[in-house]
Amino acid sequence: MPHIPVRAAEEIVRAGRRMDQRGWVPATAGNISVRFAPDRIAITRSGGHKGFLNSFSVIEVDLEGEVKTPGAKPSAETLLHCQIYRAFPDAGAVLHGHSVANTVLSLETSAPALHFTGYEVQKIFAGQTTHEATLHMPIFDNDQDMPRLVAAVAPHLPHATMGYLIRGHGIYIWAPDMDMALARLEGAEFLLACALERRAR
Amino acid sequence: MPHIPVRAAEEIVRAGRRMDQRGWVPATAGNISVRFAPDRIAITRSGGHKGFLNSFSVIEVDLEGEVKTPGAKPSAETLLHCQIYRAFPDAGAVLHGHSVANTVLSLETSAPALHFTGYEVQKIFAGQTTHEATLHMPIFDNDQDMPRLVAAVAPHLPHATMGYLIRGHGIYIWAPDMDMALARLEGAEFLLACALERRAR
Amino acid sequence: MPHIPVRAAEEIVRAGRRMDQRGWVPATAGNISVRFAPDRIAITRSGGHKGFLNSFSVIEVDLEGEVKTPGAKPSAETLLHCQIYRAFPDAGAVLHGHSVANTVLSLETSAPALHFTGYEVQKIFAGQTTHEATLHMPIFDNDQDMPRLVAAVAPHLPHATMGYLIRGHGIYIWAPDMDMALARLEGAEFLLACALERRAR
Amino acid sequence: MPHIPVRAAEEIVRAGRRMDQRGWVPATAGNISVRFAPDRIAITRSGGHKGFLNSFSVIEVDLEGEVKTPGAKPSAETLLHCQIYRAFPDAGAVLHGHSVANTVLSLETSAPALHFTGYEVQKIFAGQTTHEATLHMPIFDNDQDMPRLVAAVAPHLPHATMGYLIRGHGIYIWAPDMDMALARLEGAEFLLACALERRAR
Repeated sequence: MPHIPVRAAEEIVRAGRRMDQRGWVPATAGNISVRFAPDRIAITRSGGHKGFLNSFSVIEVDLEGEVKTPGAKPSAETLLHCQIYRAFPDAGAVLHGHSVANTVLSLETSAPALHFTGYEVQKIFAGQTTHEATLHMPIFDNDQDMPRLVAAVAPHLPHATMGYLIRGHGIYIWAPDMDMALARLEGAEFLLACALERRAR
Repeated sequence: MPHIPVRAAEEIVRAGRRMDQRGWVPATAGNISVRFAPDRIAITRSGGHKGFLNSFSVIEVDLEGEVKTPGAKPSAETLLHCQIYRAFPDAGAVLHGHSVANTVLSLETSAPALHFTGYEVQKIFAGQTTHEATLHMPIFDNDQDMPRLVAAVAPHLPHATMGYLIRGHGIYIWAPDMDMALARLEGAEFLLACALERRAR
Repeated sequence: MPHIPVRAAEEIVRAGRRMDQRGWVPATAGNISVRFAPDRIAITRSGGHKGFLNSFSVIEVDLEGEVKTPGAKPSAETLLHCQIYRAFPDAGAVLHGHSVANTVLSLETSAPALHFTGYEVQKIFAGQTTHEATLHMPIFDNDQDMPRLVAAVAPHLPHATMGYLIRGHGIYIWAPDMDMALARLEGAEFLLACALERRAR
Repeated sequence: MPHIPVRAAEEIVRAGRRMDQRGWVPATAGNISVRFAPDRIAITRSGGHKGFLNSFSVIEVDLEGEVKTPGAKPSAETLLHCQIYRAFPDAGAVLHGHSVANTVLSLETSAPALHFTGYEVQKIFAGQTTHEATLHMPIFDNDQDMPRLVAAVAPHLPHATMGYLIRGHGIYIWAPDMDMALARLEGAEFLLACALERRAR
């Protein structure tokens, strides 16, 4: 049975600090994971502030979300992380955070997605080579029933180039490694901050 | 007679630094307390910047606000802290800060409360399990007569799940320990920042 | 002849770092001074970033603005600092910074002052005991002719409890010591940030 | 053949950290260069986060953008840096960053330039002595064809006192040395932040 490598835990701790500096993990919000073996994930425990993590804040789960760390309680959203790792074999890190921009924009629209075009920063997302493309960020209604939320996300996941939003409940984003996941999160939050400034008022 | 434990003072110093980083204790605003015995509170002195506290910045009072540290001058708002500790036997820490969001929102409405619904972050407050609930944050008119302000707050305190606002004078929030008090303050300020972005303009 | 005490230079360096963290000294804007003898002032040199000062960044002038540090070039605004020290014998530190809030608010109005009422934070200013007072922050038109600007400020200075603004050119604020000057600057900028959020839009 | 001096690399690393603290290099956006010999430039590699650079993140190119570091891949925008160094023999450092303000303002207008007047901070730009001047910041349409973008910029470059914007793609700014380039970037971003607050809404 594999165990969480020190480096995986360190990357999660570092990501949490960075997200806290940006104000994206208020209260005990957000969660962070890394895949350290094909079928094993290190993920933040339920509760606790994500800006002040240490190696004990991280637990081991498999791709179905079953906990491998004895006695540990996973976050309910662990299932959303697992879904991403199952859907994208090259996904190595998943980030979930709440910003004012992603929360407000998702609550202020009833549309099923936000759209972005004309931004150079769009090129941070997989396969993007020009600002002239139009990218979509799907928005799913929040649901305390996690399996039902997983089912709602499923059909849209393969096309979610920019990650996705849960209404009033933040962003999910992923990449092959933590550095790129953090870069994509920053890119997405930058685009969301621009969209918040630009919306009709 | 008990004395302020080192850990209680350290938690207050740390909370002040964190609140200052977020911009919630401008000038000499804000105050911070910890209950270290059933009838004893450590609380910041009157005046001084809350981002640069040390152990001498903290004084001891009882649940009626009577000062136990010889020669010390308590903040006028000490009575509001004591009221919370008397009303909630499990309250272990109380935070009071001024943010732009809580100040502006309280001054821009004459309503007796702000309302929040649809935010996942609502779950940081005691007893909350879903974003579908509607939470209320009462607003009281500011008053330099502290006993009169205490009396105005009293009937609403038992239901103040999210803490409360004083108009033009910041937020009061509490929890069983300092980590949770800071998490709830962050949660409340996140919701207030969202509300400020969303208000009609 | 007195020389700049180490502590005076250190207070200026520290104030510059704090103002930079808040974004109030963009580019080479702002200047900072301390009175270290009844007729002697330590003040930042012309040019240079105020977030990265050291003891060589500070020069000595008298109350008329005459430079006492051999070969040093004072900032043009040194005369505004000297005017404050002459007008207020108990002034021990003067701060001048540019924030987005003070710049935008001063440019968006043609009124001769901004008004503040209902904020608890007003109590940081000398002689204020209640949020119910109305405080005035005078605004003077910017002028590259410094003696002419000094003359325009003069009649209003005795009543400038909150300091004053120069249109498109930042805030001037003072206090008996640097800690209180920084606290008042934070208080003023907090009130300005609130006013910027509240203005009609 | 000259090689990148340690100091040039250090200045680039430091500039990247500063720009990251301000939020101006989201994801892997932005690039930074220094001229260390009349015909040699040290510039950030393609990709990677500009807030976490080290000396290996910097490569050597000549004034035509030809790479002198074996095996290194330059950023596509290297040609824009080279154009500036060729046009201004006294240019010693060039900065390119993406802020929310410069991105939103450039996308919200179809005008060929932004205009600034009445700001004291305008004096940070070369040859400016008064807030009464009107300064222009040209905006060019973004283009993934870099030689075509260089050609579009060329006729306007000699008059671009404040640097220039690429629509949805950030700011370019330069100065004789890195300290002044950073100061001018801060000045420009301060003016853009003010303009964003002031635009009709």
